[in-house]
Amino acid sequence: MDVNIVNIKDKLSKVDELHSYKVIAQMNDYYFKIVKAKRDFIWHSHPETDEVFMVIQGKLSIDLRDQTLNIEEGEMVVIPKGIEHKPSCKEECHILLIEPSDTVNTGDAGGDLTDMKVEWI
Amino acid sequence: MDVNIVNIKDKLSKVDELHSYKVIAQMNDYYFKIVKAKRDFIWHSHPETDEVFMVIQGKLSIDLRDQTLNIEEGEMVVIPKGIEHKPSCKEECHILLIEPSDTVNTGDAGGDLTDMKVEWI
Repeated sequence: MDVNIVNIKDKLSKVDELHSYKVIAQMNDYYFKIVKAKRDFIWHSHPETDEVFMVIQGKLSIDLRDQTLNIEEGEMVVIPKGIEHKPSCKEECHILLIEPSDTVNTGDAGGDLTDMKVEWI
Repeated sequence: MDVNIVNIKDKLSKVDELHSYKVIAQMNDYYFKIVKAKRDFIWHSHPETDEVFMVIQGKLSIDLRDQTLNIEEGEMVVIPKGIEHKPSCKEECHILLIEPSDTVNTGDAGGDLTDMKVEWI
């Protein structure tokens, strides 16, 4: 049984593109995915699942319909299933996402930003 | 819908006992639990689930039957279901555990260290 330690910041240092999700670990049917982001994402929701955002570096804003969450390094948030949200990073931010492996980044919204690739790093 | 940002180190600063697990977030049927530890734990496994350990501060060792994992701040590991493991911290370490909400800390081993309490912080 080969069990590996995952250094989250080391993994991020190997990601050289923005908005390219990389899987770093799997727990049961959940993926731990990292992404470097600098964009306004679209409004969407995940009707089937909660979703965790953990900020590893920088600042992430997530608009909900009735509040804006400003999440900083060392902080996390659980977006409940079915809740519309719109993540955005004005400056580059590094995020760890935790969600079921079949979760689509654009949820129920679809569109050009949909990214179904599963790449491990 | 009230969605809260969780600052992991702030939550840990409010934990004043060793070996007292506190839930800080829930994603579907998974808990995110923090613990301050300084002990040799017992050998056990979780036959039904993988388990994630993320080190927030200090150093955590996890013995497996064929290797020892030395996990430092900013690192994580997934212990696969059914794999015997024995966590230990020589000095105080602060850990974030991610696992199904019905996971028992001592797994299939049971015994005096079993802790079934669910306390949010």
